[in-house]
Amino acid sequence: MEVASAVVSGRDGEIAAIETIRRGLRQPPQGEIWIGDDAAVVAGPAGKHLLLAADAVVEGVHFELDLLDVSDVGWKALAVNVSDIAAMGGRPLHALVTVVGAGADMIEGLVRGLAEAADAYGCAIVGGDLSSGERLVVSVAITGSAGDEEAVLRSGARAGDALFVTGPLGSSAAGLRILRSERDRGAPGPAGVTPATPRDGGDPSAVLVAAYRRPVARVAEGLAAAAGGATAMIDVSDGLGIDLDRLATASGIGVVLDAVPTATGATREEALAGGEDYELVFAARDPARVASSFEAAGLRAPVRIGECVRDPELRLIGAELLPASGWEHRLS
Amino acid sequence: MEVASAVVSGRDGEIAAIETIRRGLRQPPQGEIWIGDDAAVVAGPAGKHLLLAADAVVEGVHFELDLLDVSDVGWKALAVNVSDIAAMGGRPLHALVTVVGAGADMIEGLVRGLAEAADAYGCAIVGGDLSSGERLVVSVAITGSAGDEEAVLRSGARAGDALFVTGPLGSSAAGLRILRSERDRGAPGPAGVTPATPRDGGDPSAVLVAAYRRPVARVAEGLAAAAGGATAMIDVSDGLGIDLDRLATASGIGVVLDAVPTATGATREEALAGGEDYELVFAARDPARVASSFEAAGLRAPVRIGECVRDPELRLIGAELLPASGWEHRLS
Repeated sequence: MEVASAVVSGRDGEIAAIETIRRGLRQPPQGEIWIGDDAAVVAGPAGKHLLLAADAVVEGVHFELDLLDVSDVGWKALAVNVSDIAAMGGRPLHALVTVVGAGADMIEGLVRGLAEAADAYGCAIVGGDLSSGERLVVSVAITGSAGDEEAVLRSGARAGDALFVTGPLGSSAAGLRILRSERDRGAPGPAGVTPATPRDGGDPSAVLVAAYRRPVARVAEGLAAAAGGATAMIDVSDGLGIDLDRLATASGIGVVLDAVPTATGATREEALAGGEDYELVFAARDPARVASSFEAAGLRAPVRIGECVRDPELRLIGAELLPASGWEHRLS
Repeated sequence: MEVASAVVSGRDGEIAAIETIRRGLRQPPQGEIWIGDDAAVVAGPAGKHLLLAADAVVEGVHFELDLLDVSDVGWKALAVNVSDIAAMGGRPLHALVTVVGAGADMIEGLVRGLAEAADAYGCAIVGGDLSSGERLVVSVAITGSAGDEEAVLRSGARAGDALFVTGPLGSSAAGLRILRSERDRGAPGPAGVTPATPRDGGDPSAVLVAAYRRPVARVAEGLAAAAGGATAMIDVSDGLGIDLDRLATASGIGVVLDAVPTATGATREEALAGGEDYELVFAARDPARVASSFEAAGLRAPVRIGECVRDPELRLIGAELLPASGWEHRLS
């Protein structure tokens, strides 16, 4: 963990910032070195491939600070990286967090959100960098190990494989819509929203807003999919249409969907193109094996949404084209 | 490697940007997956600890685009991370590169500089992220393996150890001064500059400017220091005073320097507080063992600059206080 001195005023501010970060995070086990040296020293995954991914969240592009608490930004930055490891059927191990443009008043909240996500996913934050800058950027890099199986790539789907999604889509986009509409009071909400019917007595709007603020990475589901014979997998980060197109293109197949599960309170458009749901979409040859793998793990069964077909150009939902637009339309 | 769609106009621009990146970088060996999936899949260091570090370079903080070519920014972003691995006595393995705020016209140059550094240091760029943003941020995370020895921390120096630096200091700060003075034509240069006396017929200004634009990470020197029994090590990134203070504080010792080697054309102030030289400073018990380790590696002998003392408060050069200010004064 290096800290650019300019981020806070002078050396005392720098030392204070590092202390805030160190106090907010877990301490390393015996034999490992985390924050405080040029590099962290950690145990790698013994005898397994190492997974490596990086994803940044950028103020004004991926979030706006009048819609999210800064601790939500910290959570989100780590969770989206954990989701990349989940989409390989892997387990997260260690993360490095680089923060640019955080005011001194933001550090504590950011670290709190990061630490909450790190605890939730069993992923240690072992270092990073801190620098001044004009807008907040939280850039995370993460390592992981493949589960008991090999890593699940995007490229292994074959014609005839069934397609699954691990949960309903559209929550995050709907949550963002609700937050914006609350901000821009008086403006009417968009038409065509599925009526929200709370099942467990919770406020359905709150569920959607939480999905936007604190997205959940599906690590257990990714492991279950890998154990269930998943041939290809990706997380829904930019929108089902875009992400499934990536999987289909990498695999050289087409996809034909019947319907997709839509979150209560979300529109069909939000489910198909909203993105940031971080549910996993995967292909598998044997649906019974998938079902028993998820059941053995104590997980809700994934929803079968369609199949892989031979024609590599096809991207259909029913008789319609699957929308290839995603979150770039969501933030102005 | 994920690419935020908004970075370039539309899906075609995104695909073009990824292709530019992929073409500009090396391809993975059999059995590894680099760019193109949710995470890269790589072989970890067998049976060794994994080193992890991250460092970002930020426009307006660490560089200005009227003084550096964008390919220099790419080089610098990777080299400063390799330097963190070198400062542990390690070898770089894999890097993830997250670029925020690069215009479509910058991608090719950035990737060229990154790829040149990756080749120079035998470090593979295996993934990353690309996002729009207001100013250019290049955030790199790197993995490494310790050499034949354990990783060299900052905290192992003891009273009586000798202190060494791997080369003359101040080049980078002097190079920046020259570039600025060329930009602000007519403005007089600062006083007190050591007269430049080119030894090998090269232009001494060009050598200094190159040190600023294309800093060299001292990987071989770090390995030789580790093999020579280095007890603590750090790279000179923020300035000798600051970085040596970090080493001394982590080790619980004081430091007393005789003099430090100053690059031809650099001022004493630039050598002591300039930073961004990326030479390594290390402590070692047995100077003869250090000398023979560097000689065996075919490297220029490191320069002995002082020693570690018992009083943990002391930070002296001769009878003066070692300046604890660094690069934060260098960029306005």
